[in-house]
Amino acid sequence: MLIKNLSEFLGQEVEIRGWVYNLRSSGNIFFLQIRDGSGFAQAVVSKDSVPEQVWADCAKLSLESSIIIKGKVTQHPRQADVFELQATVLQIVQAAAEYPIGKKEHGPDFLMEYRHLWLRSPKQWAILRVRDAIMLAIEEFLHSADFVRVDSPIFTPNACEGTTTLFQVPYFDLGTAYLSQSGQLYLEAAIASVGRCYDFGPVFRAEKSKTKRHLTEFWMMDAEAAFVEHEENLQIQENLTRYIIRYCLTYCQKELAILERDTTKLAQVDAPFVRLNYKEAIAKLRQLGSDIKEGEDLGNDDEVLLTKDSPVPIFIEKWPANIKPFYMKRDAQNSELVLNSDLIATEGAGELIGGSQREDNYDSLLERLKAEGLKVEDYEWYLDLRRYGSVPHSGFGIGLERTVRWITGVEHVRECIPFPRTINRLKP
Amino acid sequence: MLIKNLSEFLGQEVEIRGWVYNLRSSGNIFFLQIRDGSGFAQAVVSKDSVPEQVWADCAKLSLESSIIIKGKVTQHPRQADVFELQATVLQIVQAAAEYPIGKKEHGPDFLMEYRHLWLRSPKQWAILRVRDAIMLAIEEFLHSADFVRVDSPIFTPNACEGTTTLFQVPYFDLGTAYLSQSGQLYLEAAIASVGRCYDFGPVFRAEKSKTKRHLTEFWMMDAEAAFVEHEENLQIQENLTRYIIRYCLTYCQKELAILERDTTKLAQVDAPFVRLNYKEAIAKLRQLGSDIKEGEDLGNDDEVLLTKDSPVPIFIEKWPANIKPFYMKRDAQNSELVLNSDLIATEGAGELIGGSQREDNYDSLLERLKAEGLKVEDYEWYLDLRRYGSVPHSGFGIGLERTVRWITGVEHVRECIPFPRTINRLKP
Repeated sequence: MLIKNLSEFLGQEVEIRGWVYNLRSSGNIFFLQIRDGSGFAQAVVSKDSVPEQVWADCAKLSLESSIIIKGKVTQHPRQADVFELQATVLQIVQAAAEYPIGKKEHGPDFLMEYRHLWLRSPKQWAILRVRDAIMLAIEEFLHSADFVRVDSPIFTPNACEGTTTLFQVPYFDLGTAYLSQSGQLYLEAAIASVGRCYDFGPVFRAEKSKTKRHLTEFWMMDAEAAFVEHEENLQIQENLTRYIIRYCLTYCQKELAILERDTTKLAQVDAPFVRLNYKEAIAKLRQLGSDIKEGEDLGNDDEVLLTKDSPVPIFIEKWPANIKPFYMKRDAQNSELVLNSDLIATEGAGELIGGSQREDNYDSLLERLKAEGLKVEDYEWYLDLRRYGSVPHSGFGIGLERTVRWITGVEHVRECIPFPRTINRLKP
Repeated sequence: MLIKNLSEFLGQEVEIRGWVYNLRSSGNIFFLQIRDGSGFAQAVVSKDSVPEQVWADCAKLSLESSIIIKGKVTQHPRQADVFELQATVLQIVQAAAEYPIGKKEHGPDFLMEYRHLWLRSPKQWAILRVRDAIMLAIEEFLHSADFVRVDSPIFTPNACEGTTTLFQVPYFDLGTAYLSQSGQLYLEAAIASVGRCYDFGPVFRAEKSKTKRHLTEFWMMDAEAAFVEHEENLQIQENLTRYIIRYCLTYCQKELAILERDTTKLAQVDAPFVRLNYKEAIAKLRQLGSDIKEGEDLGNDDEVLLTKDSPVPIFIEKWPANIKPFYMKRDAQNSELVLNSDLIATEGAGELIGGSQREDNYDSLLERLKAEGLKVEDYEWYLDLRRYGSVPHSGFGIGLERTVRWITGVEHVRECIPFPRTINRLKP
């Protein structure tokens, strides 16, 4: 019997197996706050209604002890949707040693050192479950839109965008392998097989950034679709984002309540997103007081500033080609721009998705590769995709932990992945 | 319009966007075999029913050219479930250069070198889609059984089972990170938060094996559940395996037909699995002619021999503790054995799943760690899980590519992952 199903057993005897995460006694009654992974509930132990041994065991209970408890399910006297257990039998599975995570405030380093235990706190429990829900929402949406999962490799032979932010791995007699930062190029190959595809796995960035939005290892979903051009690419991203929000608002109410998330803000996202082109975005930012200049990338402060009064995420599209990667397709209307977009989330959560239509013309791609000083031989296989049945196509990548951070409203992305890895953290 | 939905448009004009994967002409007719990622169909171009330009374009078509083609959907004259397109409009999106993968037989090295194109062949298309279906089946089953996804880290600080098969990555000022071989230990921490959890991602093994079953990078799903003991652990594995089979038989009929898979063999798996304990398995193997001795691990040949006449997979349970890892729980009936199991698939596919109940007693675990010469300080966090509310728990890991290999019936595991990585392959 799981706590989440307690209401279905009203008036019946049930057994719950879990942990005591809080307890207090009041004369002849012990109130045990228990959890079993599926939810949280209170068990009430009355001295008068249990054998002496059970009462004696209650006195021995420590925080985080594991127990098996039996009793009758009752409704909370004042809260109609809260159910309790009137305990009759208690078995201590293991009496926990003094738990290191207490009521007092702990610093982030302490909590990260005890990440293996910290995960048990209701807030971390809620984040884990929202993360799971977001992954399910993404996969459900993609399959309903005819995308097929095609995972891209982690070991990659060359360094697409320079080696400075790549982790290097000695690889047998083949020299160095680099840990992937994105599966995009591989997905571009797979669209000619399955039409639309996505990968969803860890990617790696050896960045020395110590911000609230950076991890060295994080999860990314890259999607790629044949015969999809810029406009449709944005539409898919918008539909996906809306789907995630709706899914979480439907299935994660308990979790979002624990996180004290203002869900009215999330509900407002269910409206058409705003679109600005890069030039408009820069003008608006300068109007709002930023000193950003045309030709520059947006910093985190700019992203926050741009979206601060917007109830919906904002697409910034058609950026200058010279600050974007070689594979983005030029805008036919203005060859100095590319057909790309960044999607900036609401409430200061920053960039969520980056995407673009890809250069599908062999000659243009070759020219771009050379202009960027990349070794053409490393990209022969990628050029093949333009030699043999090239099609217009587009794709995008969504960062999982940034999405979790946005939806849960937690401050730091390190709480949005079960075991975070940063420049100074590799444990536990 | 996608080819998979062709039958719904019988008699109507539709547009298909895809690739020509074969073509032949017969006097005044061109037969184009086209695919669009969702399926395969034939388009018929009759000289008499199309503009001159379309007929001229047909003559220019090469294998793998990308096209947009319009026409009326008709039923095949002799096959009721086959639908064709009577083309009226043809647009060549890109005329492909001479395609390197031809009709003749290619060696595996050649095909692997061109993996980015080889993925387009009907057989590889089918494998990719079966792989996707297996992943969906696994996730659907696990969620229906109350498992929550909790991804474990790839970068790990210490080398659980020796460093010889671990890939090493220089990690900032923290020394060396090792690429994970299994997320099990991390999942054991997470069960105290969510009760039941799983991870599903790439794992890495720097093994020099060059067999049909080895990759350096492959996908693994690890599941772990609180309050689940040995017997229930086996039941979950059996139910999962059956669920995968049923799912593929239901949703991958077209794909399995392309792979010429004998699905009657797969359908037979839908019966109770056989269970042997290790001792029985060794005795049976010796009876069948193997020279394996008690105390030895099974080789691939042994796995094939043991299952060759079995219509269902075989669990081998309760192995000698001294050839198994430190974290497996001893059998209370016989302390020289552990409460583990390997699940051996049918038709020579070999080991699919490995699992065990875990040692949940602090003292026993500490003793085992010391006996194996492991550094206790590296496992303090893991020992914490036995200090603070330890519970009986079990888990298992299923190798994705081996499952794909079994269900598709392909010979080599390198075809079961989109971009395989082996000791001598890091490209494309």
